[in-house]
Amino acid sequence: MFKISAVFLASLFLLNIKSDNSFDSNDALVPNKNLLHIGIVVENMDQSLEYWVKLLDLNEKPNVILAEGHHDNPTHYRGQLSDAKAKLAFMKLDNMQIELIEPIGNEKSHWLEFLETKGEGVHHIAFQVSELGEKYMELYDQKGFPVAQKGGWDGGEYAYFDGLNSLGVMVELLESYNDK
Amino acid sequence: MFKISAVFLASLFLLNIKSDNSFDSNDALVPNKNLLHIGIVVENMDQSLEYWVKLLDLNEKPNVILAEGHHDNPTHYRGQLSDAKAKLAFMKLDNMQIELIEPIGNEKSHWLEFLETKGEGVHHIAFQVSELGEKYMELYDQKGFPVAQKGGWDGGEYAYFDGLNSLGVMVELLESYNDK
Repeated sequence: MFKISAVFLASLFLLNIKSDNSFDSNDALVPNKNLLHIGIVVENMDQSLEYWVKLLDLNEKPNVILAEGHHDNPTHYRGQLSDAKAKLAFMKLDNMQIELIEPIGNEKSHWLEFLETKGEGVHHIAFQVSELGEKYMELYDQKGFPVAQKGGWDGGEYAYFDGLNSLGVMVELLESYNDK
Repeated sequence: MFKISAVFLASLFLLNIKSDNSFDSNDALVPNKNLLHIGIVVENMDQSLEYWVKLLDLNEKPNVILAEGHHDNPTHYRGQLSDAKAKLAFMKLDNMQIELIEPIGNEKSHWLEFLETKGEGVHHIAFQVSELGEKYMELYDQKGFPVAQKGGWDGGEYAYFDGLNSLGVMVELLESYNDK
């Protein structure tokens, strides 16, 4: 079962190559305008999935995976190391995906901050970049969207930039190592 | 010759069924999984657009249009007639759009309810249907997503179904008269 979902996720990533973001032009904050997914923070993954299964008429509940910190790219929340964990589930629409995120435990994270201050809701919109380095941290900071959380997993790394009080939503940039 | 064109026409017909939503299958809540836009409620359209222009590196601010009630489909908020108005702006991404909504005045609307209870943020995700009639009102209600607001404009009509405490987001269904 795990293998199937790993292959499924990998194929989703491959599909995303189509939009080609190997070339991140100059100083654009969003090098391509293909929105990969919206991320929704929820209190109870199991309950939320029941409603999403009804809405999308899915045959079964999507797999739930555990997001933990990664040794190469440990999670940082507002500049501090954090041992934050979350349950994640992805649902595929025709042109993008829906990600559900349930923070686990009390370790500080932007997921938990959002849940405590805003309640359940859409946390971020995600775009893919070819290389998520210091360049983006500085660019977003200069434009008024400081990084709020960053981290990684076996296949890539991510950062959330704080657009909550300006754009009305966080912006996630994702670098996927598999697309190289 | 007749046979060839008959087959050709039949295949066109099949292609059409696949691509449009003139055929809303049985009791599916979402007859197609192409997400048209996400709608974000904001306090100040002008200020929010400045940030979105920066994020998306747009050459100019998008046009802002006024959403008013329509005589054929007057706005209803939780079952009651409402004279709610809002400023709207749309920004095109590659695979979907971003809609910004600034409620105007104090007339009751779900936009205002959202702003007052959740603050600025992503209000809804939108899908297109071929006919937005009583069928969807009943279907959504049965599944635990009662209609919170509905209305129309010259070119179509819409309804917001309340998924805030279940899906984490409202669901908008749109019927566009121009697509018929």
